[in-house]
Amino acid sequence: MAPTEIKPEDDILGRARVRDTPELEAYYDDLAKIETGALWTVANDIEPWEPTPKSAPVHWKWSDLRREVLRAIDLVRPEDAGRRVVYLRNPQRKDVSAACGWLFSGIQTMKAGERAGAHRHAASALRFIMEGSGAYTIVDGHKVELGANDFVLTPNGTWHEHGILESGTECIWQDGLDIPLTNCLEANFYEVHPNDYQTTDIPLNDSPLTYGGPALLPQLDKWDKPYSPLLKYSWEPTYEALLNYAKASDGSPYDGLILRYTNPQTGGHPMLTMGASMQMLRPGEHTKAHRHTGNVIYNVAKGQGYSIVGGKRFDWSEHDIFCVPAWTWHEHCNTQERDDACLFSFNDFPVMEKLGFWAEQALEDNGGHQIVAD
Amino acid sequence: MAPTEIKPEDDILGRARVRDTPELEAYYDDLAKIETGALWTVANDIEPWEPTPKSAPVHWKWSDLRREVLRAIDLVRPEDAGRRVVYLRNPQRKDVSAACGWLFSGIQTMKAGERAGAHRHAASALRFIMEGSGAYTIVDGHKVELGANDFVLTPNGTWHEHGILESGTECIWQDGLDIPLTNCLEANFYEVHPNDYQTTDIPLNDSPLTYGGPALLPQLDKWDKPYSPLLKYSWEPTYEALLNYAKASDGSPYDGLILRYTNPQTGGHPMLTMGASMQMLRPGEHTKAHRHTGNVIYNVAKGQGYSIVGGKRFDWSEHDIFCVPAWTWHEHCNTQERDDACLFSFNDFPVMEKLGFWAEQALEDNGGHQIVAD
Amino acid sequence: MAPTEIKPEDDILGRARVRDTPELEAYYDDLAKIETGALWTVANDIEPWEPTPKSAPVHWKWSDLRREVLRAIDLVRPEDAGRRVVYLRNPQRKDVSAACGWLFSGIQTMKAGERAGAHRHAASALRFIMEGSGAYTIVDGHKVELGANDFVLTPNGTWHEHGILESGTECIWQDGLDIPLTNCLEANFYEVHPNDYQTTDIPLNDSPLTYGGPALLPQLDKWDKPYSPLLKYSWEPTYEALLNYAKASDGSPYDGLILRYTNPQTGGHPMLTMGASMQMLRPGEHTKAHRHTGNVIYNVAKGQGYSIVGGKRFDWSEHDIFCVPAWTWHEHCNTQERDDACLFSFNDFPVMEKLGFWAEQALEDNGGHQIVAD
Amino acid sequence: MAPTEIKPEDDILGRARVRDTPELEAYYDDLAKIETGALWTVANDIEPWEPTPKSAPVHWKWSDLRREVLRAIDLVRPEDAGRRVVYLRNPQRKDVSAACGWLFSGIQTMKAGERAGAHRHAASALRFIMEGSGAYTIVDGHKVELGANDFVLTPNGTWHEHGILESGTECIWQDGLDIPLTNCLEANFYEVHPNDYQTTDIPLNDSPLTYGGPALLPQLDKWDKPYSPLLKYSWEPTYEALLNYAKASDGSPYDGLILRYTNPQTGGHPMLTMGASMQMLRPGEHTKAHRHTGNVIYNVAKGQGYSIVGGKRFDWSEHDIFCVPAWTWHEHCNTQERDDACLFSFNDFPVMEKLGFWAEQALEDNGGHQIVAD
Repeated sequence: MAPTEIKPEDDILGRARVRDTPELEAYYDDLAKIETGALWTVANDIEPWEPTPKSAPVHWKWSDLRREVLRAIDLVRPEDAGRRVVYLRNPQRKDVSAACGWLFSGIQTMKAGERAGAHRHAASALRFIMEGSGAYTIVDGHKVELGANDFVLTPNGTWHEHGILESGTECIWQDGLDIPLTNCLEANFYEVHPNDYQTTDIPLNDSPLTYGGPALLPQLDKWDKPYSPLLKYSWEPTYEALLNYAKASDGSPYDGLILRYTNPQTGGHPMLTMGASMQMLRPGEHTKAHRHTGNVIYNVAKGQGYSIVGGKRFDWSEHDIFCVPAWTWHEHCNTQERDDACLFSFNDFPVMEKLGFWAEQALEDNGGHQIVAD
Repeated sequence: MAPTEIKPEDDILGRARVRDTPELEAYYDDLAKIETGALWTVANDIEPWEPTPKSAPVHWKWSDLRREVLRAIDLVRPEDAGRRVVYLRNPQRKDVSAACGWLFSGIQTMKAGERAGAHRHAASALRFIMEGSGAYTIVDGHKVELGANDFVLTPNGTWHEHGILESGTECIWQDGLDIPLTNCLEANFYEVHPNDYQTTDIPLNDSPLTYGGPALLPQLDKWDKPYSPLLKYSWEPTYEALLNYAKASDGSPYDGLILRYTNPQTGGHPMLTMGASMQMLRPGEHTKAHRHTGNVIYNVAKGQGYSIVGGKRFDWSEHDIFCVPAWTWHEHCNTQERDDACLFSFNDFPVMEKLGFWAEQALEDNGGHQIVAD
Repeated sequence: MAPTEIKPEDDILGRARVRDTPELEAYYDDLAKIETGALWTVANDIEPWEPTPKSAPVHWKWSDLRREVLRAIDLVRPEDAGRRVVYLRNPQRKDVSAACGWLFSGIQTMKAGERAGAHRHAASALRFIMEGSGAYTIVDGHKVELGANDFVLTPNGTWHEHGILESGTECIWQDGLDIPLTNCLEANFYEVHPNDYQTTDIPLNDSPLTYGGPALLPQLDKWDKPYSPLLKYSWEPTYEALLNYAKASDGSPYDGLILRYTNPQTGGHPMLTMGASMQMLRPGEHTKAHRHTGNVIYNVAKGQGYSIVGGKRFDWSEHDIFCVPAWTWHEHCNTQERDDACLFSFNDFPVMEKLGFWAEQALEDNGGHQIVAD
Repeated sequence: MAPTEIKPEDDILGRARVRDTPELEAYYDDLAKIETGALWTVANDIEPWEPTPKSAPVHWKWSDLRREVLRAIDLVRPEDAGRRVVYLRNPQRKDVSAACGWLFSGIQTMKAGERAGAHRHAASALRFIMEGSGAYTIVDGHKVELGANDFVLTPNGTWHEHGILESGTECIWQDGLDIPLTNCLEANFYEVHPNDYQTTDIPLNDSPLTYGGPALLPQLDKWDKPYSPLLKYSWEPTYEALLNYAKASDGSPYDGLILRYTNPQTGGHPMLTMGASMQMLRPGEHTKAHRHTGNVIYNVAKGQGYSIVGGKRFDWSEHDIFCVPAWTWHEHCNTQERDDACLFSFNDFPVMEKLGFWAEQALEDNGGHQIVAD
């Protein structure tokens, strides 16, 4: 187990560079007997110069995802599957069923008249709606209707269930959850609703009707949860806000015009562990590359273009999904000449920020652009 | 100076009820010589059972205010007056030029092409626009255009100036400031801008364009001031938010549907010392009476009705102004059968909240309604 | 009422400099009829270039205060006086019974076996113990014993009462309250305890025993009040902390070594409206002058020296009291060659900080020292 | 990969209970081709009813640890090893070199005159001193001397180095770090100090001298880091605080008298990812069992007794170390008849709290006590 090789960059004062000897090997054996080890045998591994993400950059084509998830409609029922979800399985993260880092994501579909039972868990969840009409979610009794490109919360510990009205159509949305993180931190709990489904007399859409105004809150607000009282962020005002923002700002060199969804009570992230943003790339805009801690999963809300992630080029169009693992260079390009492109994304930035782990770096070489690997 | 009379309610254990004697009077004289006094001679006065507000409830008719402020256009120039403002002078607060409590308010008018110079002060200011077109305000280089029923900030310490475009019309707005509070706390500072007027290359309306979206903020926001980055809250989305809120809530028994303007970065009040709200009274709605610490100045944004404040009935219509002093019973009534009525108001609630002075009480008697004094 | 004189420094663009005319005087009369006025007639007064404090710097000699307060023991009983207090009456603030700014202060005395009834009020109170033994305070059932130079809280809204054990001696302490502020903000409420005195089975001194450790708190702390759970700050560890601090720091050029009493739960001020500090002046130390918003009342905890406040020299010794009004230059000097001097002080800085009113300036002239007025 | 078995407790509405079919198996193959999977094949695994910790409860005997770590003095030099540390290797967490959960811990030793070079990393570190004299740590230029049972911080991102004075003795301390967490979240960075060792002219022990007073802070404090300015918490005042606390409280039924080390600026945890406590068990005290999310590593500061962790009894004496993994029942017993026992511990509670993952449960059965497995 002791390192027989010391990498040249580690053969300096301040790194572990102890060469094995027979005495040391005997010592290591003795340490193992008392459930210990010698730090210097693992120090360089556990104290890397910088992070090396385990996750691979992956591009999931919407045409593939859509085809496969619709097949599931005839293969399983929500009553048996719990949720009819095809999940995005990062090839380097199969062991934890994660799409990227410690984030889970899946594509869920339901057909008209279906209803999936209520449950709750310590993990937080979000949805980004991709197609269909008549979908709704009920979160702790608050029922919200869902439309295309809406962003929806089902925060940690809330009873939640989804359904499609009889008058609706097949609906598809993307789920994002911090299940792998919750498991990794050994904090996940799960409960099935005692009545299988929630009953409620709270007015339909009360959350967005109450909290969806710009910079306005009820004067005496009783909401005292650690997550946003606004459970749905509709596409139309979000897109309009981006168009407005474009008149006032050049945005970020790395992300174009990017707005963060917030908890209107605090200005912070909508949930404790996950943030989300919608960004606009102007016609022809090609951003510079940067990298940062934290993981991001993108869903193309509008338009066409490509992103270069860790040296790989992903050519995307509407509702394609791709991920950017931690500390991986990335840049985006809208290849359209006349139209803007919009990317929805969600991330684990709240975790990075709260624990003091946020770090960011701009690419200096090559005019700030990556060289694409073939 | 010693109390010769003790009120019956104070003649109990726990209140000061010392009767004067010749020895005590001699003692009081000696105390005065060393800049002291006997607490029990003033204790009941300075520790009242409950607050007795100094300010009177006042109703300022818009027809009066409008007529008089427009006269000022020909009487004074902004260059001489600083600001062409008719201020609301509470008859009980003439000594501090306050409209209510420690709040100042005035009606300002400017005509097309006029421009009032830039200054700054430790006091915070807000505007509520009543009529005209072409008005603008520049706050620390951020220029915003103003329209009817918009709510606008010029926070403490910011350089600010107002003007009307040549293409505009005579404009009138209400100013609200905490000048009396700032003076009372001996913290006011004043500076004239070194160049008289600000120059700026920040895009027009950049503040509302950037921060005016619902529950959205720039992902990496550089604003680090203790007041809102959103400097203008437009009427249209505010009214729409009230209409939405009405679909989801019955609102408050005392205020109907009432939304508070917030700093979108924090969910708190837009400025450190003053809050503001817009409330909707549904057709025929008559709220119940309550009272609370803190002062409120109302401007009728829409509709007709009346309010009963401290037993006085104020019949109001559009742009009338009235005030509710601290700890004074008040209730509102929309007398229209078909239309909603909207009241803009600003207040000193942030002061009450931060210093632990917030208190509130519902009127229990008479079905929760005051008896109107003739 | 209109200004007939315009000061030279106000006769510039950006200030009000409207000369009276017969038409304007007629206009002012009309404005008065509708409870209004012209801002430019008061603007320069209510928007001063900088604060001019109303309070005078005052020095109260301990020998005077002690003599007079002890006389009161034979003149009034706590049962009649409520509290046997000689209050410090700033000659410029007699109207509000304040010692300085909006702060009240008094000297209270009780004799062995006396007990003053429990009451509560919206105002916050603090004590600084000057002499005697056997004193105690009960705050919402938490009883704390008081010793010389201890600093003690009775926060806003708490039931509190004071007494002296039969085995004790005559005790004297300084009270500090924000009563004038609470009244000025029209937020004071007062209640006599329904049973006149509190009964309690909470262990004696539980508050300092629980919260008095350095940087330690109960792991699961149930205290959820907006003020400190530590109700007494003892002199001995405070003095020791100053001695330690002196080994590590030169302190402040204006205050020497100055430590602020904190709420250990938050690191903030112990109460919502008042802060307090203990500072040490090393032998011979003479600080530089500065001024700031906010008012301070000092009590000499130890030693001899002088302070220059607003150009007046106050030669002080133990338990003398003096005040520094807002925006008034002040500097301190320990005239002892071998011993340190310690000043206890309390202030209204929390109000200034929370409302954005804090401002501070160093004296540049004359080597940073004031010229003493004769 | 698809589950062939469904556990009885999962065979209900609300859990995944899809039986494999040939069509489904073909579907799963197709999903795998596009880097996806069917959620229902893993749902019950990744959404457990409650956490199942990976870490084992482990007891490390001080006699073993001390013997082995002292052997290392002759086997490796700090210049080669970086740090001379025997780390605690949980048998279930060898892959991540963790002692418990995502916490690392090790036993470090240095001899008189040795000095280990300065480095910094995104991981946070703490020390608990066990024996020897003359040890010191330098954190961003702040040098602190270390004594037995002191608790010391080297927060994330700070340059830090350790050494022993020539006049000192062999020293041994326990290190605690969040290295596994930092790695798991892919946020670790490492740097060797450019000069190998720090130079400093900051006064010795300035941090505890400045910030170590009870509920006292410098009046104008310039410290603006997200971790405590107090870098050392000495044993003597901590033990005294526990003795005081014992006079005022019965403490916690699960932990006895337990005080949390705090950041005196905020009252929060001293560092962003790790908390620490010192607890006292009174003579003969046997606490009740509870469990909670988050991991704890204990070091016996004083006395003898045992803890039952996950049904295993660990009989401990001074400086023994043991761990309590997440969601594992635990209870403590001081077996001494006359003396108190003290347990130092550190934990990852800040992570649990900030991310909303804190959960706690009392053992109801068997009078609140576990049954010890043989």
